[in-house]
Amino acid sequence: MAIFNNTRHINFPMLLRVLGWLLIIESIFMLCPLGTCLIYSEDDWLSFFISTVVTLVTGVLMTFCIRPTNTSMAKREGFLLTALVWVVFSLFGMLPFIMCSTPLSVTDAFFETMSGFSTTGATVYPSVDILSHGINLWRCLTQWLGGMGIILFTLAVLPMLNHSGGMQMFNAEVTGITHEKLRPRISQTAKSLWTIYFVLTAMVFILLWIGPMDFFDSLCHAFSTMSTGGFSTRNNSIAEWDSDYIKIIVTIFMFLGGVNFALIFKAIHGDMKSLYRNDTFMTYVKIVIAAYITFVIAIILSGQAHTIEDVTIDPLFQIITTMSSTGLTASNFLNWGPFVMALLFILMFFGACAGSTSGGAKIDRLLFLLKNTGNELYRSVHPNAIRSVRINGNIVSPDIVDKVIAFLCIYVMIISVGGIVLTAFGLPIVDSFFNSFSCVSNIGLSSDTTGMGGFAGMPDVAKWVLSFLMLTGRLEIFTVLILFTPAFWSK
Amino acid sequence: MAIFNNTRHINFPMLLRVLGWLLIIESIFMLCPLGTCLIYSEDDWLSFFISTVVTLVTGVLMTFCIRPTNTSMAKREGFLLTALVWVVFSLFGMLPFIMCSTPLSVTDAFFETMSGFSTTGATVYPSVDILSHGINLWRCLTQWLGGMGIILFTLAVLPMLNHSGGMQMFNAEVTGITHEKLRPRISQTAKSLWTIYFVLTAMVFILLWIGPMDFFDSLCHAFSTMSTGGFSTRNNSIAEWDSDYIKIIVTIFMFLGGVNFALIFKAIHGDMKSLYRNDTFMTYVKIVIAAYITFVIAIILSGQAHTIEDVTIDPLFQIITTMSSTGLTASNFLNWGPFVMALLFILMFFGACAGSTSGGAKIDRLLFLLKNTGNELYRSVHPNAIRSVRINGNIVSPDIVDKVIAFLCIYVMIISVGGIVLTAFGLPIVDSFFNSFSCVSNIGLSSDTTGMGGFAGMPDVAKWVLSFLMLTGRLEIFTVLILFTPAFWSK
Ligand SMILES: [K+]
Ligand SMILES: [K+]
Repeated sequence: MAIFNNTRHINFPMLLRVLGWLLIIESIFMLCPLGTCLIYSEDDWLSFFISTVVTLVTGVLMTFCIRPTNTSMAKREGFLLTALVWVVFSLFGMLPFIMCSTPLSVTDAFFETMSGFSTTGATVYPSVDILSHGINLWRCLTQWLGGMGIILFTLAVLPMLNHSGGMQMFNAEVTGITHEKLRPRISQTAKSLWTIYFVLTAMVFILLWIGPMDFFDSLCHAFSTMSTGGFSTRNNSIAEWDSDYIKIIVTIFMFLGGVNFALIFKAIHGDMKSLYRNDTFMTYVKIVIAAYITFVIAIILSGQAHTIEDVTIDPLFQIITTMSSTGLTASNFLNWGPFVMALLFILMFFGACAGSTSGGAKIDRLLFLLKNTGNELYRSVHPNAIRSVRINGNIVSPDIVDKVIAFLCIYVMIISVGGIVLTAFGLPIVDSFFNSFSCVSNIGLSSDTTGMGGFAGMPDVAKWVLSFLMLTGRLEIFTVLILFTPAFWSK
Repeated sequence: MAIFNNTRHINFPMLLRVLGWLLIIESIFMLCPLGTCLIYSEDDWLSFFISTVVTLVTGVLMTFCIRPTNTSMAKREGFLLTALVWVVFSLFGMLPFIMCSTPLSVTDAFFETMSGFSTTGATVYPSVDILSHGINLWRCLTQWLGGMGIILFTLAVLPMLNHSGGMQMFNAEVTGITHEKLRPRISQTAKSLWTIYFVLTAMVFILLWIGPMDFFDSLCHAFSTMSTGGFSTRNNSIAEWDSDYIKIIVTIFMFLGGVNFALIFKAIHGDMKSLYRNDTFMTYVKIVIAAYITFVIAIILSGQAHTIEDVTIDPLFQIITTMSSTGLTASNFLNWGPFVMALLFILMFFGACAGSTSGGAKIDRLLFLLKNTGNELYRSVHPNAIRSVRINGNIVSPDIVDKVIAFLCIYVMIISVGGIVLTAFGLPIVDSFFNSFSCVSNIGLSSDTTGMGGFAGMPDVAKWVLSFLMLTGRLEIFTVLILFTPAFWSK
């Protein structure tokens, strides 16, 4: 097969050169917080200036000094580059955090940056209210770039990647089981997806701005909402504004952040039927409705329904922020009792639709799991029956079913191993497993039972472990994990 | 296929008649605690006398009054009868608990009996020290009967079952992925397995008796140990005796309780090579050794190593009691810190070998999981590679691999759903999931963080849910779960 050619060495020169291009792009993004600091006359402009220069110079040097003998990149380069880009972006992206007026250690800065790019939204800052506008914008901007995907952005703006393994990198970065090409060329697909993402972000920004939020907070929360990242400029998150209007707007756009962007593309282009025909989307909607009804009943029965918000927007906001793995908070949902919390765990596990900016194992895989489980139970009674898994009316090949089920097993295994490793570094047992879960699923909530003050007080090594888990979760595990298999590196 | 014939009605008359036979067997077992009460001049003799008479009369009536027109039983009758037997045995077996001098409510009595038969060993008694000898013997005896299996015992003593679905029931009750017939006829296999079980129990009984334990406690703990049940006659469990000799003996026989009895049969008959060639057994041994080394290091590093026992028999006892899902306790392992606890969770999840009396998902399935996961990672890099799962040197058919992986998914799902249901009845969230896990894996430890006093203080409905989970876990899920599928009941 031409697609997979393992008979030659990995093309490192080409790989490093592409990394160079990508660093140039990152340095351009750094100009936004630099400008913000200058507008607000903040001292942090210098840290962004230095970071921009360092990133730009490194990028330019890599691009122009490395002359690959051939420009072809295949499957392995795709995986490796995708995983590397996210690490390298975090390594350069953390520079402003280290040099700013509210400086972080290298560990904390890397954690914060990876938390941003992976749209996890876990923060090491005890207070974000005191950060400069530049730093807060950079935090939210990393999420926005990571939400739709760094590679995908590059494919959209640098069409030359198309000729060298673009499709492989697209597959390695975009979440999901099968990857739909919306348009004949991958750069066109990338452009379409990023355009939708951009327009939706602009919409939520404007809708927030015309409400009670100011320009800057609206922009930051627009980035946080559409990327389902969840960083806020306020310690109280969305609850700070105590505005039903803001809660409703954010809920709507977090919901959209959980929808497959390819499906939004089709709907925008007039193909509304594809929404109804899409099993994942319909299940997403049904889960939201079922969860909402269940939550309202549970909240009323537990005597927690004091205001009209307690049975309308607050549970809905919490369901959507959890399913889309955003992690913005608008109400004191911890009071709703263990049953609601348990359901939130399950919603958190499966997340929303593949191909969206949300985290978790994805509803697509939940469907595979349920259908495959039903089949196996059926086959216990009727051992000779052959039943296949159907998604969106099409029979899925057994290979793909096996891969999805294996994914779910690995997903649980990585959360478990992550939890065990954290206990080894002294974290309490419940926190260890919850934080591991929170980072792999990219929701970024901290179990506040540590007595360690969320993520801030954790031992350094735990933060590196969690950073690794965030990346593994964002790239849906295989892309990262196969780099640790001998099969990947053998000729 | 002759094996599976779904084109006719379920043969209920035959099914009820076999249930009658089985009740007669249960009533005979009840004579043991009855005799014990008479020997110790305990008032509880009357409750056992009444229970025996009720069970015997019901059994005799069912056997002699029901005249089935045909005696054939097929696959569906096998599943249904197996699940029913365990419920019916618990319904009659709970009678002594209700009528004795330390009476339990119906809910508590059913929970205690199902906990016994399923070898879970979770108790609702706040103190077992005050129970009569008769009651304590009955608790331990239910475990012993349930450990090797009610159906299997019946197959061994009532060869007539052979002709009517014996093989199906054998498959439905004995744990494991594939079921090996040791000898040509299923009744011979059942006899061999029960003989080994009986001899091992006699051995541990004698070894305990010649040590610091008295006759009665030795007998009860022999039942508890070989069945990996974990009920004790003392509130402090094995720690009561503070004897290294007892800990060592119990550890050895709990370990044997975790070995596939078919393998013990072969080893006894001179085929020692089959031990080395058995992947599951070798993995069992390796996990014990690896866990022991890790535990000792962790205990020393956390400064918990005060005595020689702390780094020798105590961690070893705890590893084996957890892996074999026995749940007897001999030391204060809760002090060993979160890392050791986290590892114990994982050991608890997978348990020991299939075909043993232990609970959990079984090491056999762990091997499938690891090999299948490795294959899928390999196939991410080499999509056209065909790699099969090998166990004990033989290639396993993909159908079986799929079924095992589906089992593991269902196993996690049932623990999760159990946990959610418990939160709905007001249990705290961590306790809900831990207790669900503890009952499905048949280990029977309670998370003592409830403030509800272990299992005793739980709401009644939670006890019924947990009883269901214990049965589902003991019969390895499929046997119970398929009874709730329409496919099972459709003609
Ligand atoms: K998030
Ligand atoms: K047990």
